[in-house]
Amino acid sequence: MFTPPALDRLIREFSSLPGIGRKSARRLAYHVLGQPLERVHEVASALVEARERIRPCSICFQFTESDPCPVCSSPRRDRTRLCVVEKASDLESFEASGAYKGLYHVLGGTLSPLDGIGPKELHIPELLARAREGVQEVVLALGSSPEADSTVLLIDRMLGELDVKRTRLARGIPVGSDLEFIDEITMLRAFEGRVEL
Amino acid sequence: MFTPPALDRLIREFSSLPGIGRKSARRLAYHVLGQPLERVHEVASALVEARERIRPCSICFQFTESDPCPVCSSPRRDRTRLCVVEKASDLESFEASGAYKGLYHVLGGTLSPLDGIGPKELHIPELLARAREGVQEVVLALGSSPEADSTVLLIDRMLGELDVKRTRLARGIPVGSDLEFIDEITMLRAFEGRVEL
Repeated sequence: MFTPPALDRLIREFSSLPGIGRKSARRLAYHVLGQPLERVHEVASALVEARERIRPCSICFQFTESDPCPVCSSPRRDRTRLCVVEKASDLESFEASGAYKGLYHVLGGTLSPLDGIGPKELHIPELLARAREGVQEVVLALGSSPEADSTVLLIDRMLGELDVKRTRLARGIPVGSDLEFIDEITMLRAFEGRVEL
Repeated sequence: MFTPPALDRLIREFSSLPGIGRKSARRLAYHVLGQPLERVHEVASALVEARERIRPCSICFQFTESDPCPVCSSPRRDRTRLCVVEKASDLESFEASGAYKGLYHVLGGTLSPLDGIGPKELHIPELLARAREGVQEVVLALGSSPEADSTVLLIDRMLGELDVKRTRLARGIPVGSDLEFIDEITMLRAFEGRVEL
């Protein structure tokens, strides 16, 4: 075939990214060829610098350039509350909502014994250690997969030995959603959790 | 906000790519943070190397690492036929079809007087020079926008002075398409161009 090898390689690299199929990868690669060289250098350095500068916070494991991260080191956060999430990318919507002023704890996944992911592969020991230090409430904000459910059960049991309130996020109808398009489990949860007007 | 600046920059770089929205850009950026550093260096170098090594062929203007490109320098291509396309990325489907053994000519766009794109901004002078050298057929394989139509008209007129056959691709129903979803213009062209069984 007559695709230049360097172009072929670039298409393969783009295809390896999540959500980018072969056609989008080709489109992106041709786009890159049409850009000024400085711009391409900027994109390349943004990739490498992000990967080099950003690491997990040694306390909460969210991505940060400074350690401890700005949230863990802020004097204005409520240190009696911990919000536990699966992955660092889950935190942005919490911060965007403005509703939460406590600290975070990123587990780094959910329990998955078949893949060899037990409590120690997640940051559960660190969570328990933190929970012992003046924390009054742990918000378990994991997803709704079976793995997330069993992770929540385990953490809930482990925290049960301490005098810590455990909560989870409300389940229900997303704001602005059309009822017609709500799946039956969400509807069931929303009905069960109905509140008086 | 608490997104690390290097992450923010990476998200912005991804968002600037065609077809990548803010959400996909975030997803891609977090994916990069989870990759080994060597892999990120590989992606970055694939970007820069593709942009540095690949340039337009000095004869046909398709992207190539060697100049003239493999097609222009191949002794097995039919030098009496020229296929004219808008952009280099259009060529791959020609080569994939295996139906065409002639040479190519990439215009680099279509006429667009409002954007200051006249015949000289495209590679039309080079096309006329090539057409004078033993070419018997020029296949005008441009898109179906009004700009493409006027580009085809201009080239057709310019080539009219030479003894060169001008053709365009057949318009009709794509193979495997459901008639129900064919737009009316395509249907009109397909009907006008019907062939006897």
